[in-house]
Amino acid sequence: MSACRALRASKALVRYSAARLTRPVAVPLEARRRFAVSAPTMSSFYPDWEPDGPTVKTEIPGPQAKAAIVELNEVFDTRSLNMLTDYSKSTGNYIADPDGNVLLDVYAQIASIPLGYNNPVLRKAARTDAMINGLINRPALGNFPPAEWAEILRTGILKVAPSGLNQVFTAMAGSDANETAYKAAFMYRRQRDRGGPNVEFTEEEMNSAMVNQSPGASNQLSILSFKTAFHGRLFGSLSTTRSKPIHKLDIPAFDWPQATFPQLKYPLDAHAAENAEIERTALDEVERLITTYHLPPCAVVVEPIQSEGGDNHATPAFFRGLREVTRKHGVLLIVDEVQTGVGATGRFWAHEHWDLHDPPDMVTFSKKAQTAGYYFGNPELRPNKPYRQFNTWMGDPARALLFRAIIDEVERLDLVRHTARVGEYLYEKLERLADKYPGEFRNLRGKGMGTFIAFDNPRRDEFLAKAKTFGVNIGGSGQSAVRLRPMLIFEEKHADILIDVLERIVTSW
Amino acid sequence: MSACRALRASKALVRYSAARLTRPVAVPLEARRRFAVSAPTMSSFYPDWEPDGPTVKTEIPGPQAKAAIVELNEVFDTRSLNMLTDYSKSTGNYIADPDGNVLLDVYAQIASIPLGYNNPVLRKAARTDAMINGLINRPALGNFPPAEWAEILRTGILKVAPSGLNQVFTAMAGSDANETAYKAAFMYRRQRDRGGPNVEFTEEEMNSAMVNQSPGASNQLSILSFKTAFHGRLFGSLSTTRSKPIHKLDIPAFDWPQATFPQLKYPLDAHAAENAEIERTALDEVERLITTYHLPPCAVVVEPIQSEGGDNHATPAFFRGLREVTRKHGVLLIVDEVQTGVGATGRFWAHEHWDLHDPPDMVTFSKKAQTAGYYFGNPELRPNKPYRQFNTWMGDPARALLFRAIIDEVERLDLVRHTARVGEYLYEKLERLADKYPGEFRNLRGKGMGTFIAFDNPRRDEFLAKAKTFGVNIGGSGQSAVRLRPMLIFEEKHADILIDVLERIVTSW
Repeated sequence: MSACRALRASKALVRYSAARLTRPVAVPLEARRRFAVSAPTMSSFYPDWEPDGPTVKTEIPGPQAKAAIVELNEVFDTRSLNMLTDYSKSTGNYIADPDGNVLLDVYAQIASIPLGYNNPVLRKAARTDAMINGLINRPALGNFPPAEWAEILRTGILKVAPSGLNQVFTAMAGSDANETAYKAAFMYRRQRDRGGPNVEFTEEEMNSAMVNQSPGASNQLSILSFKTAFHGRLFGSLSTTRSKPIHKLDIPAFDWPQATFPQLKYPLDAHAAENAEIERTALDEVERLITTYHLPPCAVVVEPIQSEGGDNHATPAFFRGLREVTRKHGVLLIVDEVQTGVGATGRFWAHEHWDLHDPPDMVTFSKKAQTAGYYFGNPELRPNKPYRQFNTWMGDPARALLFRAIIDEVERLDLVRHTARVGEYLYEKLERLADKYPGEFRNLRGKGMGTFIAFDNPRRDEFLAKAKTFGVNIGGSGQSAVRLRPMLIFEEKHADILIDVLERIVTSW
Repeated sequence: MSACRALRASKALVRYSAARLTRPVAVPLEARRRFAVSAPTMSSFYPDWEPDGPTVKTEIPGPQAKAAIVELNEVFDTRSLNMLTDYSKSTGNYIADPDGNVLLDVYAQIASIPLGYNNPVLRKAARTDAMINGLINRPALGNFPPAEWAEILRTGILKVAPSGLNQVFTAMAGSDANETAYKAAFMYRRQRDRGGPNVEFTEEEMNSAMVNQSPGASNQLSILSFKTAFHGRLFGSLSTTRSKPIHKLDIPAFDWPQATFPQLKYPLDAHAAENAEIERTALDEVERLITTYHLPPCAVVVEPIQSEGGDNHATPAFFRGLREVTRKHGVLLIVDEVQTGVGATGRFWAHEHWDLHDPPDMVTFSKKAQTAGYYFGNPELRPNKPYRQFNTWMGDPARALLFRAIIDEVERLDLVRHTARVGEYLYEKLERLADKYPGEFRNLRGKGMGTFIAFDNPRRDEFLAKAKTFGVNIGGSGQSAVRLRPMLIFEEKHADILIDVLERIVTSW
């Protein structure tokens, strides 16, 4: 591995033991801190893979990255650029840049890398004939599916289908996964109102649909989402996104309702009674909107943990209540697992934490799945005629094959259980930090939710910038949250490095 | 090539000469017709690649496909399935199915295969380290672009940028390419109305945007599209799509205006004066809608040839007029080249046929590019702040690398000029067929537009079904159009087979 060779060659200033560190290593603070190791060691999951710790050689961006960013900016907007990346030198939990900086990455491409950079098993999957076939012979999946498409689905996407949901509509990314789920919800509701799948559309419906008017266009219906939710940034999904003005300004939006997402007090268990009351109020608001909003919702969409919106949690009781109230009023429940899905919460799907007896109607996925779509179970969620839910590509078989390889590896290495365990380990360490520096690690949250953990910091943006100088790449969410989104191959030893850096950040200012 | 071996083994009933056929081969009609060859021959582009002609062994779907479709239908909607495909046995212009049927494919995954199935050069590109890196280390391109992203863009997507447009926002497919272009248009217009990029959003704008209301959400503005247009099926793009009720029914839509696309008489040159009048009327309607529609359009979106809507053509004069009228009123012109782009019209971009002095503001692409996005030139089309036009993946580097390999091959083999030439050859043959069977090949259109050719048939659906039994896979569009969408490697010899089959279809009923 070239990253390992680079690290071997670099001057070792700090050595992390490959064994578990039980407390932060005392490291002298320096203006330009470097982490490096003298030799690569065996990783728990793959041999000769990762460095033992981060290396910070230059400021980030360093001189090489700066020059490349100027060049890139001529043709591609770089104002949201976080770190120009050298993927060929990134390995496992470590992300590299062109200046030789190698950071522990607990942001992971906005929570979308499951098995580490340059995972050797995925590399092998990428070389198979099946993958090359999927890559160079891209099918229009709705019209000309590959003969093996059923098998690819059954052994991949559908092998991990949430309980009660056995079908899938495949898509390209989280936004269109959600939008196609919304489309299915509108068609389902109108079909029910019309009197079933065999009732034909009227002339009036067909004519009005063509001019974007009711009754043909369902402008009389809506999707209900929650304040501070994030469901994507295309026109329909953005109408349900309520994260920040900058995401929504100047873009037309549907007049759809929003309910208050429970704003709970953390830690959740210390405020159980108060939180239960907040959740009851929130559920009452949902029910009131369902029954009184001038454009009745045909579906409620919700994230198990509001991610982009600031890592806002609610309890299983709230979500069970949401399932009850939607069922009671014949409204569909769409669970957006784009960010929470695929293991990071210590269950394969975060909504498994809820112990639902009655599954969600649809569950959307993307990010760590490296492909996207929505699961459903009720056959009536298939629109009553062909070509109603359709587009040219309808997903990407190459990416579906990659998800299958990811699933196999998650199972082989038992990574969901692993993540639950490492999450507990990390959470305990964070609790200790929060006890020590209560002003710096506020509202610690994500207990029992794997490594899907966050806290608030009053100088969040500075906190994240500083983290890079200490060798860790971390993301934020909402107004002040530091969100941890390690990969599923994040281990206790990585947690130790992270905890050490977090402490050094808050003691450095 | 396994398809070649399969063909070699099959019983030869009809042999097509590899040399150019100047007229249809007389072939006895049979209930179950078979085409096959005794041995593979050199293709013009790649050695030992394609069969010499189609093989039809069973009805389509045959017994193997039927069983597989039943299985697939349990988990994936198959009602729009056209032909279950064996991609591993498909080569070049020929698509194979699990029953050993091998059809000449002039539909090409809804116009999205540029260089043939299992193209050897793309296969090589798929095996490179760069491709594997792009596939297994999927970046969030806006936050963590690969260090080589500028180079990938410059040597790929931007190498073929339309004249006057030197920047790109990358996307996943045609729908989100169009929707992100629309978002750019709304932001641009509001920025201009606000007084420039440095004018801050007001509190009222920020607050109203969060509840989906004006002025923060641009519900007071619109996108103007044309009747029978197709621009995608997500909520924003579907609001501009005006193809068929089945595409739009039950889905909420924005109250955006539609103008009449010129309904010209074919052949265009035989009705020049009359068509010019129709186009003038259409342009007047566009101008009237721009100046009077209650939600003023910030952009007009148009396809160079309305594809899904029925292969409706307009003349360069119309499009030049559209550029003038949009420029005059400060409205952006978005050219949707999702289906027309990448060579099939005998120019790399179809709008190059228009001889514009003033380029479109944005050009969207997908399909044959195997990746998607929109080109633009005006730097003010970059929103004034970061994270306004953003999503997690913002495209796919693996697919961008594939487009680069496609571009290189298109240039190496001079395939755009090739397609212009083969298109002329094919069009002439079709003219002769239309002279001979005027009721069967109506409104022949696409002269001088490469192989992007269509005609109407009164029994269109039956026509397409019959084509399969004779060994050719063809698509339809609109109400009665047979649309030809061969790949860029379609040659005169394939045109001969196609013409022969077309004649046999209409003489068989």
